[in-house]
Amino acid sequence: MIIVMKASATEEQMQKIIDRSESLGLKAHVSKGEERTIIGLIGAEDKVRMQPLERMDGVEKVMPILPPYKLVSRELRKQNTVIKIKDVEIGAKKIVIMAGPCSVENKESLLQIANDVKKNGATVLRGGAFKPRTSPYSFQGLGEEGLKYLKEAADETGLLIVTELMDPRDLDLFYKYDVDIIQIGARNMQNFNLLKEIGKIKKPVLLKRGMMSTIKELLMSAEYILSEGNFNVMLCERGIRTFESHTRFTFDVNAIPVIKKLSHLPVIADPSHATGQWGLVSPISRAAVAAGADGLIIEVHPKPEEALSDGVQSLLPKNFQELIVDLRNVCKAVGREM
Amino acid sequence: MIIVMKASATEEQMQKIIDRSESLGLKAHVSKGEERTIIGLIGAEDKVRMQPLERMDGVEKVMPILPPYKLVSRELRKQNTVIKIKDVEIGAKKIVIMAGPCSVENKESLLQIANDVKKNGATVLRGGAFKPRTSPYSFQGLGEEGLKYLKEAADETGLLIVTELMDPRDLDLFYKYDVDIIQIGARNMQNFNLLKEIGKIKKPVLLKRGMMSTIKELLMSAEYILSEGNFNVMLCERGIRTFESHTRFTFDVNAIPVIKKLSHLPVIADPSHATGQWGLVSPISRAAVAAGADGLIIEVHPKPEEALSDGVQSLLPKNFQELIVDLRNVCKAVGREM
Amino acid sequence: MIIVMKASATEEQMQKIIDRSESLGLKAHVSKGEERTIIGLIGAEDKVRMQPLERMDGVEKVMPILPPYKLVSRELRKQNTVIKIKDVEIGAKKIVIMAGPCSVENKESLLQIANDVKKNGATVLRGGAFKPRTSPYSFQGLGEEGLKYLKEAADETGLLIVTELMDPRDLDLFYKYDVDIIQIGARNMQNFNLLKEIGKIKKPVLLKRGMMSTIKELLMSAEYILSEGNFNVMLCERGIRTFESHTRFTFDVNAIPVIKKLSHLPVIADPSHATGQWGLVSPISRAAVAAGADGLIIEVHPKPEEALSDGVQSLLPKNFQELIVDLRNVCKAVGREM
Amino acid sequence: MIIVMKASATEEQMQKIIDRSESLGLKAHVSKGEERTIIGLIGAEDKVRMQPLERMDGVEKVMPILPPYKLVSRELRKQNTVIKIKDVEIGAKKIVIMAGPCSVENKESLLQIANDVKKNGATVLRGGAFKPRTSPYSFQGLGEEGLKYLKEAADETGLLIVTELMDPRDLDLFYKYDVDIIQIGARNMQNFNLLKEIGKIKKPVLLKRGMMSTIKELLMSAEYILSEGNFNVMLCERGIRTFESHTRFTFDVNAIPVIKKLSHLPVIADPSHATGQWGLVSPISRAAVAAGADGLIIEVHPKPEEALSDGVQSLLPKNFQELIVDLRNVCKAVGREM
Repeated sequence: MIIVMKASATEEQMQKIIDRSESLGLKAHVSKGEERTIIGLIGAEDKVRMQPLERMDGVEKVMPILPPYKLVSRELRKQNTVIKIKDVEIGAKKIVIMAGPCSVENKESLLQIANDVKKNGATVLRGGAFKPRTSPYSFQGLGEEGLKYLKEAADETGLLIVTELMDPRDLDLFYKYDVDIIQIGARNMQNFNLLKEIGKIKKPVLLKRGMMSTIKELLMSAEYILSEGNFNVMLCERGIRTFESHTRFTFDVNAIPVIKKLSHLPVIADPSHATGQWGLVSPISRAAVAAGADGLIIEVHPKPEEALSDGVQSLLPKNFQELIVDLRNVCKAVGREM
Repeated sequence: MIIVMKASATEEQMQKIIDRSESLGLKAHVSKGEERTIIGLIGAEDKVRMQPLERMDGVEKVMPILPPYKLVSRELRKQNTVIKIKDVEIGAKKIVIMAGPCSVENKESLLQIANDVKKNGATVLRGGAFKPRTSPYSFQGLGEEGLKYLKEAADETGLLIVTELMDPRDLDLFYKYDVDIIQIGARNMQNFNLLKEIGKIKKPVLLKRGMMSTIKELLMSAEYILSEGNFNVMLCERGIRTFESHTRFTFDVNAIPVIKKLSHLPVIADPSHATGQWGLVSPISRAAVAAGADGLIIEVHPKPEEALSDGVQSLLPKNFQELIVDLRNVCKAVGREM
Repeated sequence: MIIVMKASATEEQMQKIIDRSESLGLKAHVSKGEERTIIGLIGAEDKVRMQPLERMDGVEKVMPILPPYKLVSRELRKQNTVIKIKDVEIGAKKIVIMAGPCSVENKESLLQIANDVKKNGATVLRGGAFKPRTSPYSFQGLGEEGLKYLKEAADETGLLIVTELMDPRDLDLFYKYDVDIIQIGARNMQNFNLLKEIGKIKKPVLLKRGMMSTIKELLMSAEYILSEGNFNVMLCERGIRTFESHTRFTFDVNAIPVIKKLSHLPVIADPSHATGQWGLVSPISRAAVAAGADGLIIEVHPKPEEALSDGVQSLLPKNFQELIVDLRNVCKAVGREM
Repeated sequence: MIIVMKASATEEQMQKIIDRSESLGLKAHVSKGEERTIIGLIGAEDKVRMQPLERMDGVEKVMPILPPYKLVSRELRKQNTVIKIKDVEIGAKKIVIMAGPCSVENKESLLQIANDVKKNGATVLRGGAFKPRTSPYSFQGLGEEGLKYLKEAADETGLLIVTELMDPRDLDLFYKYDVDIIQIGARNMQNFNLLKEIGKIKKPVLLKRGMMSTIKELLMSAEYILSEGNFNVMLCERGIRTFESHTRFTFDVNAIPVIKKLSHLPVIADPSHATGQWGLVSPISRAAVAAGADGLIIEVHPKPEEALSDGVQSLLPKNFQELIVDLRNVCKAVGREM
């Protein structure tokens, strides 16, 4: 921790900082420059990170040195985390494809999509049973019934299931219907109670980046889960909110190599939400894999013009099939498999 | 709803749109221009709002005409909503001051602050018992104990209490300790399950705008609460996230007159979070009132350099006292009282 | 300057940094912590600011201590800069009102507006002769003819003139027609050649913040002008670009007290561009003054529905008159005059 | 153009809109809905686009139907524009690599880099002679001397030259030293006078997107150039400014397929500026090509730790060489050549 004193700071103010730091078990190291004096604090930065030292008289600013996350950090664990679920590995050489409808709408349509995406190489079926919708008047998901259909589709096809948990009180249902991967949605990335609860279980988690969250905050939210004991976390870049309004969100492709550098956790990309337009899903999927993503989660719907949610960004099964062909080539080009 | 067809759209594609619209009970009105044909849909826009018509062949874009919110809209209710709690009115001529520490830390300090802010004109005591913190290693609030201290402070001073609810399972505690105003924090603005639950009760709600949420989304989240039957909602502008990094957030002062125009609900400003620096709280409080805010929520702490959260942005009691003097003048200047 | 070394940095890498720093005339101060070693560089930070030390092996990050601007800094000059032009003082106790049409459209209309705004307390007439327009097909301004009309209006009313300079080659015309204040528009805030040229003259400058520029960058652009010798610079907050699309820009009211704290230069607010809606100009003008602005620049047009640019955000003369009445009260409330 | 009337609009107000539209040569088409009346204007939208109809009484909002650009639009020209300069084609099947130092620093180093990048497949040499720098105290470029060195490097290697023009008064020098491609930097994307001047010549232009400019604004700036007669324009995505601060900018990879869809002009990506970190240049280069970019512009420096600008984001020649190997594979995977 570095404390920069104001040009006008007095000796007495400086001494108070030093005393306070030493009372917290840190050693203070003073460097007097021509224009500013700085105090370096040596010792466990954690102890002072949360202290509002900036509020002490004479302080201009406080600059932390260490990142605030630990367990998710690549410094702690050099090799990539690989999450194994049945015979699927996430974070290994093989790119994982998760695909399916935005919402589970009915059994027949879900089974059809599940078979379709499985045939084309997906190993995980996505589909929302509980849907966070901006409007109270929009379709809110089938709830438990949706989970039941997902389970049936999984049993029939052998696909894994990923679906969103919005409320800790629904966790029992997620066990009842053998959900393989619990998705925490962008709007719940900082629902800390929810994070703590899924930290206490062992089920793999797909944690989506909030549309307004920095990479550091995403890592801190993952830290919540790991710090409770659940290390099976994959992070998902799904587009951030910017001033650009032509696309629904701006896919932060930079975040992929940045997260891979800072953390050992696998990174999944969601080109459907990150663009909001089906015509952009293919190029952005290719870009995500080229940038180092470990997997993709893609919306597919046989009749997007009738979908109860996100039809505009859903691929037709035939678009999905074409995308997969392209992706195989890109995977090979960057030393991955599919 | 306006549907703009692509320049290349065929008659057949257009007919499909018309048929689909009519099957939804709407009347389609076609205008052929030189460069584009547009189809105006007349009838209940709600019915088609959620339909992914954009995904139909030949469609370039779909433009809704009506705002998606209803109950919160000033169109529905011309006069300002005034929320009455005991002898405090929120949304009336008198500006409401809510003040107190970021977190409830202990009983003595809370009582001291409560007496201090009451003396200076506050009518509501703020203080977090359950704290949403970015880091799992930060102070997470006293929980139930914090609510107890708040109740004691309220009993002693006659102040109302506002405090944050993060989890619907804590609602019983909020009743047990007579919380007057339930705060929904910025990070939970789109925790739709939480919104629905507080919609079912009658307690007044302070709904904070998410840091990356549009004004429209804030109104939609309020709509969730009103649509369940709870009309006692006040909206809070607390700063949005932008590229400017000198302040913690950017206080969107434009939002105040905009919300007052679009909605009948009261608007509260939070200059502490919106700036993140105690030295900016006074000018931004004055600006908020000058722009039309109905109240302010301000962090006050007797020893900010020892606060367990948000010390950097907390006012000392003497700063608060000075601010209140300034604010009385600004209130008068804009035809309000305090 | 603080250099944070990677956890994995070697002694040799550290030594190279030290040698490099010393060759630049700085003293290096090494602090070895448990998790990181940091090197503090003492001496003229300027010398190393531009050096890409971050690129040297073993370096994790480089953190500058001092702000990069000097001449504009309040550290250099404690008291407020007051710019005197004829009998108008900008930056003193009295709030300055600049008002007029977006573009100069014709002589009659300009004279009418000039008389109107003068009557209501404006001391500076605004009006664009050279207009930066997003579209090549929009009205681009009257050019020299516009300057001529401005001069005539100034001669008739005694108002000062502020108008935008887009091209250094037009500077002679600005002298010919006695422009009092040269406006540098938001889109030219980082047109560094233009900044250098107006730095070489003595005419007062109104430097608008770029819609994509941080406060620090605004101060750096002002530094360009001051560093060439022209200290008569006022800074203008005119709204920044954010994700919020309900208003044309987001007025960064925080920036007003921040700039007043960091710099001695006067601050002007532009509520017309910052909102893009005439109905918001009054509340935002009041907010700006309440937050500490030294002046306002406001668009006024007698027939906004026929204006050749920015009609949507222009006040009618009668709206302007009402605003001025309100502003006088707010000025008094915050210890200013008008 | 669609005009949505307020719920409270009167017949008289509506009639005024209709009269005004007809006086502009348009036909008005009125649709009365349950909650709103809308007026569709048929005819040349251009005529009314610039009219502030929103300011007329009774109008709620005005929604344009057509994009405001024409010449750059793919609607005007279906096939891709291919710009031919000597034996290099930009916008064709082969990906174009532009590489070189941020600034031209001296002759020897430039020649060395030029030879290096040529050997690895670059066909265009980049290097700034006139540098836009945020600080007046930073290295501002060698000016004419820099152009001279570029010309010598071009003569020796056969590479084309791309370099930035900041001031129209330097255009003669760009002719004197045979600059092949004129770069318009991000900060000058809306320097409309500069755009008009390069529109009048025939030299190819690399127009960089402003860091806070929308895709639509980028296309409008290109429209300025094309509307003056110069059709040899390539567009460059170089990162936009967002709230994410871990990277210097956020590379808007979505923009690549979006621009390719909206316009016939070639798209170049600049991963060096878009990330600000040399370690991210390779993954983002691969992503850009995978998403459909027609070329890349990359900073390369033999001693980045001594570079006079942008050392942190410059690749070493050996990094560049490795990147090129990777890129050849990605090109092949997406059906391009290199």
